[in-house]
Amino acid sequence: MRADLSIVLDACGGDNAPDEIIKGAYEALKKKENLRIIFAGPEDEIKAKVESYADMPTERVSYCNATEQIEMAEPPVKAIRHKKDSSIVKGLTLVKEGEADAFISAGSTGAILVGGQLIVGKLKGIKRAPLAPLVPTTKGVTLLIDCGANVDARPEHLVSFAQMGSIYMEHVLKKKNPTVGLLSIGTEEEKGNALVKDTLPLLKECKGINFIGPVEARDLPFGAADVIVTEAFAGNIALKTYEGTAKMLMGVLKDSLTENLRSKLGAAMALPSLKKHLRAFDASRYGGAPLLGLRGLVVKAHGSSTAVEIKNAILQCMVFSKEDINGKIAAELNSEEQ
Amino acid sequence: MRADLSIVLDACGGDNAPDEIIKGAYEALKKKENLRIIFAGPEDEIKAKVESYADMPTERVSYCNATEQIEMAEPPVKAIRHKKDSSIVKGLTLVKEGEADAFISAGSTGAILVGGQLIVGKLKGIKRAPLAPLVPTTKGVTLLIDCGANVDARPEHLVSFAQMGSIYMEHVLKKKNPTVGLLSIGTEEEKGNALVKDTLPLLKECKGINFIGPVEARDLPFGAADVIVTEAFAGNIALKTYEGTAKMLMGVLKDSLTENLRSKLGAAMALPSLKKHLRAFDASRYGGAPLLGLRGLVVKAHGSSTAVEIKNAILQCMVFSKEDINGKIAAELNSEEQ
Repeated sequence: MRADLSIVLDACGGDNAPDEIIKGAYEALKKKENLRIIFAGPEDEIKAKVESYADMPTERVSYCNATEQIEMAEPPVKAIRHKKDSSIVKGLTLVKEGEADAFISAGSTGAILVGGQLIVGKLKGIKRAPLAPLVPTTKGVTLLIDCGANVDARPEHLVSFAQMGSIYMEHVLKKKNPTVGLLSIGTEEEKGNALVKDTLPLLKECKGINFIGPVEARDLPFGAADVIVTEAFAGNIALKTYEGTAKMLMGVLKDSLTENLRSKLGAAMALPSLKKHLRAFDASRYGGAPLLGLRGLVVKAHGSSTAVEIKNAILQCMVFSKEDINGKIAAELNSEEQ
Repeated sequence: MRADLSIVLDACGGDNAPDEIIKGAYEALKKKENLRIIFAGPEDEIKAKVESYADMPTERVSYCNATEQIEMAEPPVKAIRHKKDSSIVKGLTLVKEGEADAFISAGSTGAILVGGQLIVGKLKGIKRAPLAPLVPTTKGVTLLIDCGANVDARPEHLVSFAQMGSIYMEHVLKKKNPTVGLLSIGTEEEKGNALVKDTLPLLKECKGINFIGPVEARDLPFGAADVIVTEAFAGNIALKTYEGTAKMLMGVLKDSLTENLRSKLGAAMALPSLKKHLRAFDASRYGGAPLLGLRGLVVKAHGSSTAVEIKNAILQCMVFSKEDINGKIAAELNSEEQ
């Protein structure tokens, strides 16, 4: 008897593998009875750790033995072609063959992007599969699409990103009629590079999306739009600058507050309020970044993911599947072609 | 008798004009006896405000009457062509005609970029004039070049940005043998877009710069390199994401610390340490962003500049002139051509 949804988890990927991956799976399995987990990785080692949980629902757990591991610095295309026994290649193959509905990994972004496209394959009508992380903002969360491997994308690709992103925000994040902005260097239409200028008229004409025009990077943290469309190079620069700046400022804050006895006492008093406000910016509760437009679901979890992010990525995959996001994407993009 | 250095100040530009502009000029004039200031703007109004300072060295102050103003949202090329009596056009013309050594404005970035190139003109051998703001980092400050109007730049432009940026950091900021990084989406050479891949070999071959390879946006706030070279679209995205994220987090911090009595008391205790640490990230002490490669110096000060930033921008111009940065840039780029 097959459970409603099977998810392959890369047990080798990320900074906290395999312990936090297994813990996240355990928590999701306890919460959702229609969930089945397949761990991809060295079976004996993973199995021993999984079975150390006394009440693990082992009848819904299986293994996909994988003896190789793709390192973060390996050239992705080469790694996917040569490491046939890696957790990423074997896990993605299960999705391709219909043995699993989704694959989640906190491992090499490049290998997941390349493997997703080469092994799982793209939906009909999709030219590029964008990676779409959720960025926390003062208004909730923004889908920044694309932050993946599709550098030097063309205007028509960006239009499909806008469509896919809108469907994802509306049906997975339950944001009604999500706004779509185009990342640029000013809100005026005459600003921007050639790609922005060529994409603007296409997005204006595109039916089924709520396009609001160009948005500036400085407004990204303030929730300028629910979906922000961009080519992957600029998207990656925006995402990484956001993460780096936040990390740097949190470090400065920590150094300030632990500097001396006076600041430590002050910090202790202010801590509850501080924690409460900063918790709103914890993206882990939204799960990982989906690679949209594939014939199955592939999710890239953050390299530093802990159990809570893995659990949430699993729950996110279940909504994705239940809402038939891929069916909706295929329908939207095929209606366009007619 | 002409003072050693004449600087035109746009008295109309920025959020705090003209009061903070005048105050910044006053402070610089008191500090430097070989400085002469020309205010560009509505003469009567500015003069009245300037002369309200009892000990203003008025013998070193003059005026360039300008009755028009270029608004932030105006299309830059059109504004420069049609508003001949604006403070930006008239101020830049003084630099072009050799009546002034430098022009500083906190007004429309687009108009300053376009006007700098069209009116002042580029140095021989310079194809694009990059805008190079200084970004505060945990190690001090990084020159991010280009964040200006040169979107869709080509590899050879980026090489000249690396050369100009190195000269600026070495001689104005006094950073010995400054490191140069190329902004990319990974530190591995096979990552990046077509522009990055085409630029990498050129930067490796370029003599006279200390090139350290590709750098990631997440490492920008941690001082990944002294000079970070990029095409203007990506540079603007990085700069604005940095500014937006910092502004957003400072807002969250303020909200947290003023939430209730307990947090307010804690904040009051921690404040001295917090202020001390955050002061290191105040970019205003470095002045504004130079538009490099012109036949004179044009500096864009932040729109929210107060007197201290204007004063520092003036002092920065004096170092620029004293060190003959333009002479050094011309020499470096002409030696290349042979």
